[in-house]
Parts: sequence; C-alpha cells; structure tokens
Amino acid sequence: MFDQLQDILNDIKPVDNSLSSKIQAHLDDLTKPQGSLGRLEKIAMKYALATATDRPVLNKKKVFCFAADHGVAAEGVSAFPVEVTPQMVYNMLGGGAAINVLSRHAGADLDVVDMGVSHNFADHPSLRKHKVRYGSANMAQGPAMTIEETVQAVMTGATLAREAREHGYDLLATGEMGIANTTPATALFAVLLDLPVESVTGRGTGIDDKMLDHKISIIKQAIQVNSKHLATPLETLAALGGFEIAGICGLVLGAASVGIPVVVDGFISSAGAVAAMKLSCKVGDYLFFSHLSNEQGHKAVMSKLGAHPILDLDLRLGEGTGAALAMQVIEGAVKIYNEMATFSSAQVSEKN
Amino acid sequence: MFDQLQDILNDIKPVDNSLSSKIQAHLDDLTKPQGSLGRLEKIAMKYALATATDRPVLNKKKVFCFAADHGVAAEGVSAFPVEVTPQMVYNMLGGGAAINVLSRHAGADLDVVDMGVSHNFADHPSLRKHKVRYGSANMAQGPAMTIEETVQAVMTGATLAREAREHGYDLLATGEMGIANTTPATALFAVLLDLPVESVTGRGTGIDDKMLDHKISIIKQAIQVNSKHLATPLETLAALGGFEIAGICGLVLGAASVGIPVVVDGFISSAGAVAAMKLSCKVGDYLFFSHLSNEQGHKAVMSKLGAHPILDLDLRLGEGTGAALAMQVIEGAVKIYNEMATFSSAQVSEKN
Repeated sequence: MFDQLQDILNDIKPVDNSLSSKIQAHLDDLTKPQGSLGRLEKIAMKYALATATDRPVLNKKKVFCFAADHGVAAEGVSAFPVEVTPQMVYNMLGGGAAINVLSRHAGADLDVVDMGVSHNFADHPSLRKHKVRYGSANMAQGPAMTIEETVQAVMTGATLAREAREHGYDLLATGEMGIANTTPATALFAVLLDLPVESVTGRGTGIDDKMLDHKISIIKQAIQVNSKHLATPLETLAALGGFEIAGICGLVLGAASVGIPVVVDGFISSAGAVAAMKLSCKVGDYLFFSHLSNEQGHKAVMSKLGAHPILDLDLRLGEGTGAALAMQVIEGAVKIYNEMATFSSAQVSEKN
Repeated sequence: MFDQLQDILNDIKPVDNSLSSKIQAHLDDLTKPQGSLGRLEKIAMKYALATATDRPVLNKKKVFCFAADHGVAAEGVSAFPVEVTPQMVYNMLGGGAAINVLSRHAGADLDVVDMGVSHNFADHPSLRKHKVRYGSANMAQGPAMTIEETVQAVMTGATLAREAREHGYDLLATGEMGIANTTPATALFAVLLDLPVESVTGRGTGIDDKMLDHKISIIKQAIQVNSKHLATPLETLAALGGFEIAGICGLVLGAASVGIPVVVDGFISSAGAVAAMKLSCKVGDYLFFSHLSNEQGHKAVMSKLGAHPILDLDLRLGEGTGAALAMQVIEGAVKIYNEMATFSSAQVSEKN
C-alpha cells in the first residue's frame, strides 16, 4: 500500500509550461481586448496546462462527496448530533441535498463515498462503499487514524480519480460530509501551515461563543497529545485528520497523477488539498480553489497558499457546493477559449 | 412618448416584503445549517420577492446586448477604432463573440439591439432594429442626445422588457457594445452619484496613461459644456449618455414595471441601471449587480450604491458577459430553494 502511494506521488509531473505561449497567443487572438476576460482567461490557461494541451476538452464532470464520522465529536465540538452524517448521506442518495441540486445544475455526476461513516448502508448506485472504519478515533486523546488506515483512505481517493480518468471524466470536484469535521480540518491547517489555532478556528455549522472557546481548547489539546506524531505530512494527516479528508487528499493526488484538474470545495476540502500539497509540491498546478468559505480561517489558509478562490459567496456548507458552482465558471472559461471567434476569422479590427 | 414613460414609472411597485417571512421559513427548513448557503439564500430571497411569490420560477432567460456609437469617440478616448462597433455586432450575429459563448453556456437567449450604430444592418433573426440615430453627438461639445431621442431609447428598452414578459421570460440581463462608451458611463456616474471624475475614470478597452489623462479632461469638459442640461436624471442621461445606455435604463425600468428581475452586467450597464434608479427609487428591488468590473471606478460606484456584486472575476469586456455568468449563480440559488429536501421530509435531525 505504501509502495502504491509512492507510485502515485512519482507519477505527478509539473505541467509543461512550454505550451503557455501558444495558449496565450490564442487567448489574445480572440475577439475581445487582450486580457479583458480577466480571471476567465487565467482559468482557461491553467486548465489547458493541467490537461497538457492547447485544445482543452471539458465534457464530463464529477463531484465526489466523501463522508465519515469523527471520534472527536464526543468532545461536543459541533452544533449538530452525529447521527446527521448517515442521515445526510441518505439525503444525498435520495437527491435532496444541496450538492445534488448544484451538481445537477452544473451538469456534473455525483458519487457519495462512504469512507468511514458509523453506519451500515445498503447498496445504492450513487454510493461507493470504501469504509475504512466506523469513524475515526478521538484525536483529543491520540491519533485519529493509524498510518495504515490513512494510506488506505488516501489510496481509495487516488483510485477513484484514476478510475474516473478511465471513464472519460475531464474535471473532478471534492466535497465532504462529516459531523465535527471542521475540528480536524482546523487542526491540520494549524500544523501543516503553521497558523495559530485561534486564527483558523470557526463556528462550523453554527456553534456559540462558549462552544467556540471549547473547540479551540480541544484542537490545542489534540495537537499537544499528538505532538510525537506530527513529524511528516502523512503522520499529521493520520493523527489530526479523518477518513473523508484523507480521501480528498487521495483524490487530489490521483487526479494530478493522471492529469485531471480538481476543483477544491471549501474549508474541509482545502485541508485535504493542503495535505496533498505537502505530500507533493507539484499538485498545485492541477487545483482550482473554488470559493472563499465563510468559515473563519479559510481566508488565512488561502492567503498562506497564495490562492485566489474563484467565488466568494459566503458559503459554509461544504458537500462540494462551492466546487459545483465554480465548475460552471471553469467550463465557461474553457468554452470561451474553444468557441470564440478570432480577430482574423471575424474580420474585426484590432487595437489602434 | 413622455406619457408612456411616466406610465412605466407609475407601474413600478416596491416588492411585497410581507412574503419574506414565509420565504425565509422555507429556506431555514432546507436540509442545511441555517444560513450556510450564504449569498445563495439572499439571492433566492431577492428573486422570490421580485417575482412576488414564495414559489419562484426560473426557466427562460434572455440577454439583451444594446449597441450604439458615440460622437465623443472623435475626441480619441478609446483604444479601438469606431468601426469595431458594427464589426462586433456582426460577430455577435455570427455567434463568435464572448457573449454568444456565455449566453449559450447559461442557457440564455441573446438578442442584439441596434440602438444607434453608425451602420445599416441587414435583417437577422437575433438583431432587433431600433436605431434612434447613427450614433450620438459629441458630448464634449453639447448634449449627446435630445430629450426626445433619449425617451425614445428608454421606451425601446422598456418595450423589449415588457415583450419579453409576454414571451414567458423569467430573468433578463443587460449587455452593451459601443466603442468609447466608458466615457459617457463615467460622466453619468460622476454627475448622478456625485463622484469625482478622476475616481471613476478607467482605461476602458486599454488606453495608456496619456490617453487616460486626456479622457479625464474630455469628461470634465463634457460635464462643464452641458452644465445647464443636468437638472434632472433624464436631462443628464440625454446630455452625457448614449443610445445603448438609455436602452439599458429602459430595459431595467420596463422589467421592474412587470416584475421581472434584471441582471446588470458591468461598468456601462451599471450606468444605465443608475439612471433607472434615479428615475425610480423602487427599481433596486429588481436588480442583481452581476460582477465587480476590473474597470477603475466600478468599485466606487458599487460602494456608493451599497451594492455587493455576485462575482469578482476581473472582467472588463462588457457585452453582458458578467451578467450571463451571474445568471447561472442566480439559477442555482432558485434551484436550491425549489429542489432541496426539508428536514422533516428527509428525516434529518436539526441542530442540538
């Protein structure tokens, strides 16, 4: 399993920037003042480079929503009870969750991945059953996952990405569901990005001031308790992460290894992406950060990464909702690149 | 014609806010933490109120791209030659402009409206021929349009909106094409919103520092020359506007008069919207500002209006491109409202 993860990491290549001048020349020949489509042009460039072509294709899209439970929920860090994780998985399988609505709107398929929910689900065509365990251990008392479990979860995500490639998907997006999962995500940001716990801890689904103070102290305790297990990104992910976060990390790595761009949803998904970026410094070339979350701390995370999210709509739901919306902007950018007329073909005069 | 405009203004009613508690109750019953979809929820609320129902419908969408020439182009205020206006109209009729691509992407129909291009076009199914004159007069030497021409242009836009209502459109968007039209738009912002000319003058399609200084001096000259024609919003629109800007103003007024929300594109479209807001203080309830333009000054305009544009993608093309992209976000918000499961229907536990 460790060897397979190393193979994935070895397969991730930096994008071929020698294509960029050809791509830019085409963007500049489209019937508009140069650069006037701003970030759409930058998005088209990034997508083309990530897919290693100056004739980019974007047809099939898929959102993977990874679900898991968290032992740290026992510490009272979330506003919602833990039974909501399986309830929301059923809601997604029934088509009634926000991510169902926005995936359909974006024309993207949706798979829900059980990475570690504390519940047995019946088979369902949209459910991928990859449960590692019935929820992680309580990270406030020791590592949330073993190294072996973590590698298994990462490899699950990576394998899903590589299968998606075989099924012809051009663009993937991450999402998640897991009561209490802002707590591990925050702990990962604090350690992996060296950010103060207070600066990245927020209210998740809606806790009050008193619970916020408690959440901060639990995160600090978790970092303290696990201080001997934070030497590498993989150990840190195991000690302070969760099964769905590790799955997202794996999806990002697997997608980058086969040249598929990935749209990263909000706060929790960013934690999976950051873990992936720490495991391979090249994956950033394949990532689109979809939106600036309303969750306190996401701005500091994006700033530390030098990332500029596509949307800023005060979302704080997760599931992949921001990523699905951003997929439409990315698709618009690729269509601009592919479908607009050029100055010569349309007989439009250029700048004086 | 003046009477007809007055009738339109009289038909614009403030939205019925008594519906808001019912709409909010439904938003709060959807299977997500309350408020966690941020601005999507606010957009759904605004759309429902504007369409006066707690069961909002959003099926048919249309972008109107208004085109006109400007006498002030003779002062050398634009980076592109004036023949680009009709050339770009042909490009739009041929399907190759950015707005064609993004309208198709949004599933919106597109009409190009000749409000005052200095060129005779043959008939085309997507071209609406409402030419008032072959371009406006040079506003640096006197009023750009007469009052009668201005009312004719405003009524054209209003009539298009009311016809769209009859044809079953649920959401309209504004766009424009007209070489030199950032110059009249800027002059209108300066006068109608009492903003310093320097603070709202930008580089349009891409002028250099020297031309920018020249553009500022031309705008100041136009305001000075027309100082006796700026007593009312309608006179100001006539003196410092243009046919496409007046058409946009009319589309906004006409749409509000029949309860259709309008998505306002960028810098130029905002000038038409501001003129409409000065003619009727109630139209703001029906407007979505789609994006923060990269054109210098748009931020000051949005700030003065207390508006919070949906997107911020550094666009500065116009045509309706930002509005088309924002239509997809608005449609996503309405689908969230209409298609998500409720806590009770999905058997999901509520907050502790």
